[in-house]
Amino acid sequence: MAALSESPTLVLARWAVQTQWADVPEAARQAARRSWLNWWGCALGGAADPQVDRLVAALLALGAAGSAPLLGRRERLDVPSAALVHAFASNILDYDDTHWATAIHPAGPVASAVVAWAAAHPCTGADALLAFLVGMEIECAVGLAVSPAHYAKGWHITASCGVFGAAAAVGRLMRLDPTKMVWALGHAATQASGLVASLGSSAKSLNIAHAARNGLLAAQYACAGLSASTVVLEDRFGFGALMGDEGFALGPLPAANSPWQVEENRFKPFPCGFLLHPTLQACQALVQAHGVLASDAVAQIRLRVAPLAATRANRPQPADGMAAKLSLQHAVAIMLLEGQAGVSRFTDEAVELSQALRAKVQVLSDDRLGQQEAAVEVLLHQGAPLHARHHPAPGQEHPSLDDAGLALKFHDLLAHGAPHCAADGLLERLRATEQLADVRVLVDLTLS
Amino acid sequence: MAALSESPTLVLARWAVQTQWADVPEAARQAARRSWLNWWGCALGGAADPQVDRLVAALLALGAAGSAPLLGRRERLDVPSAALVHAFASNILDYDDTHWATAIHPAGPVASAVVAWAAAHPCTGADALLAFLVGMEIECAVGLAVSPAHYAKGWHITASCGVFGAAAAVGRLMRLDPTKMVWALGHAATQASGLVASLGSSAKSLNIAHAARNGLLAAQYACAGLSASTVVLEDRFGFGALMGDEGFALGPLPAANSPWQVEENRFKPFPCGFLLHPTLQACQALVQAHGVLASDAVAQIRLRVAPLAATRANRPQPADGMAAKLSLQHAVAIMLLEGQAGVSRFTDEAVELSQALRAKVQVLSDDRLGQQEAAVEVLLHQGAPLHARHHPAPGQEHPSLDDAGLALKFHDLLAHGAPHCAADGLLERLRATEQLADVRVLVDLTLS
Repeated sequence: MAALSESPTLVLARWAVQTQWADVPEAARQAARRSWLNWWGCALGGAADPQVDRLVAALLALGAAGSAPLLGRRERLDVPSAALVHAFASNILDYDDTHWATAIHPAGPVASAVVAWAAAHPCTGADALLAFLVGMEIECAVGLAVSPAHYAKGWHITASCGVFGAAAAVGRLMRLDPTKMVWALGHAATQASGLVASLGSSAKSLNIAHAARNGLLAAQYACAGLSASTVVLEDRFGFGALMGDEGFALGPLPAANSPWQVEENRFKPFPCGFLLHPTLQACQALVQAHGVLASDAVAQIRLRVAPLAATRANRPQPADGMAAKLSLQHAVAIMLLEGQAGVSRFTDEAVELSQALRAKVQVLSDDRLGQQEAAVEVLLHQGAPLHARHHPAPGQEHPSLDDAGLALKFHDLLAHGAPHCAADGLLERLRATEQLADVRVLVDLTLS
Repeated sequence: MAALSESPTLVLARWAVQTQWADVPEAARQAARRSWLNWWGCALGGAADPQVDRLVAALLALGAAGSAPLLGRRERLDVPSAALVHAFASNILDYDDTHWATAIHPAGPVASAVVAWAAAHPCTGADALLAFLVGMEIECAVGLAVSPAHYAKGWHITASCGVFGAAAAVGRLMRLDPTKMVWALGHAATQASGLVASLGSSAKSLNIAHAARNGLLAAQYACAGLSASTVVLEDRFGFGALMGDEGFALGPLPAANSPWQVEENRFKPFPCGFLLHPTLQACQALVQAHGVLASDAVAQIRLRVAPLAATRANRPQPADGMAAKLSLQHAVAIMLLEGQAGVSRFTDEAVELSQALRAKVQVLSDDRLGQQEAAVEVLLHQGAPLHARHHPAPGQEHPSLDDAGLALKFHDLLAHGAPHCAADGLLERLRATEQLADVRVLVDLTLS
């Protein structure tokens, strides 16, 4: 444990430099592997998005061509721009991970920088995965030290804290010493940015993209001997003073016998607004019990949800796939019809498919239900009504995915955004990342 | 005048798009030309600095090679990286311009982005200069709207507001419509960053470098159709709310019959700390009256300065050129010996040169003197003592340079950082920037 008088910037830098696999308990290792896998799925699922096309074209027009590959694509850019595109793509479907204590989506900024750097330099799978894990812990430690004021004020915390994680992760891969790691954090802090005002526009995913690129550059500046503040977290004109509220209150960092923040990382099970998740889970339970339904067998569907969901997501006629991500009616219909609600179930085509059954869904606000609850009742033309309800166990309020669910999500995402990839082979290699002599084999398996 | 209810983001965007040369009064045109000239001198003066070498090497190692030229250098990078290097180089000698009402050094972020973009796209001199002027006005308008709280809290205002100027300037060159200019400002705001904690390290000039690159990219994102917040300055989770104090209070924007902020821009006459400037001016006056002195003719020198200068800059034995920038003793000695105090007078060699005379300088704190005042008395071995005093006229408290002074500074900077340049020819072309069919001829004249 650090002495009270010790600089939190130095404490974090030392921890980032010194942590080894031997310090990581099995639960944290397992959690890191899952976060890694979930991120690769998200990055590949978003790789062919029209907004990614637009971003890559805009960068190329300014001369960003280089030799760093882009996951799931053909173009090659300079290394920082590759990190930027990876992070943008991995966030664009809004399907990533969440560390609920901070509201950070931890993997994006860190993995994007690690993979961009590792695709251009020799790097073992074990080193890449440990750098990823260390970066996520640094990012969450910084986030916790300024929570809840930081996000509440309006800083887009995945960006503003993610830059530290990217800097620490890439700094590790560069084998920076503690002095230079302090500089890397200094360069990261002075680039920390991202406004919540950007949510709802392309600038939201760009915030996270900048965190990845800027963190990578922060490490590179430090490595090149360009100095930065050595007390950037605690300085009176530093990160805590300006972007925290009560300064910078660093908590204990993880160790061999203590919990790691990565264990709290949760994986979004459905590519749509969180308000729809309890409904999708209730309908999924119904399908698991009774099989999928046909539209013309159904007379009426009564959905009961918490008032917030009923207010925000009562959208009987979503105009397109984007709007369907906030339509309870679409969510109910598509899950009952198909038994799944992956990325291909929130497209313009899926909205047509759900039309007939959607029209039979009645959304009822029920203030006895919590925000993580939903109850569905299906009245059939023939036979008894079907019921299902989602009511999470204590401690399980935030939905996530187990290993089987993560594999399904991975396949769904690759089919959507990188259908040219051999998903089974890539999944197998990703699960064995720690055994890889060079992480580039993973990248090569995705190129189109 | 905008209606009170109108969005300040939209007001700024429209102004940036619509302003034409016909709207610019002669005084503002003249001021813009001087700021432009001063910036080119600073950028070339810093071009060969070892820290610039280090930065360029670090970027090249990550694949930043491209076709955009770097002023005064051989390497070519992608366009955003070229903007970054220009801004870094133009700030590295700490010799740039100052808009005292905000403490912004306005030219750096804007000119760096304009020149990088214009070197890669056809662009007339008149368009480049107007974009530069408009960008500086936008940057100062944003700065004024959050002053004094923004800088007082610890935001490095040249960076955090400079990004808006760079975005507006490049957005103009791209001929963005008002809707896309709003996005460009949105992308700029969500990247706004830079901590005062970085001052005293390389991260300080990097802050300004990032503002230039990020502003250029903000315009490019908007141009490519990537959306951003449309109310980023006034949103409750936007720039004013997070980085101002009382929100965002936009003042009136300049017009044909009103003053422009560029007219308030001042040019640093000496490449050293402001605390030394009154002393250098007093000694310069003494030399102008009596000629330069020889060390062995002098018995003693008594310098009287305001208490702050006496506390912070009483440094009889500066270790090197960097330390000499905060040594009153060195400043007195070098000016009396050489009659000049340009960049070559704050080097390690100059510190040796000043040694004998420096030892005879006594620094006295005088609380009757204002911070812009200094008085010097030289006791000679033979003859009457010499006296000089600097006491600025009201309204002239902040030192600056007239056209002749700017030309001398330009030559001094080029001799230091770009001795291969034909300074006279470049100066002549720069003064006629508005007549150039393509601004690239200016860039080409600097390449090594």
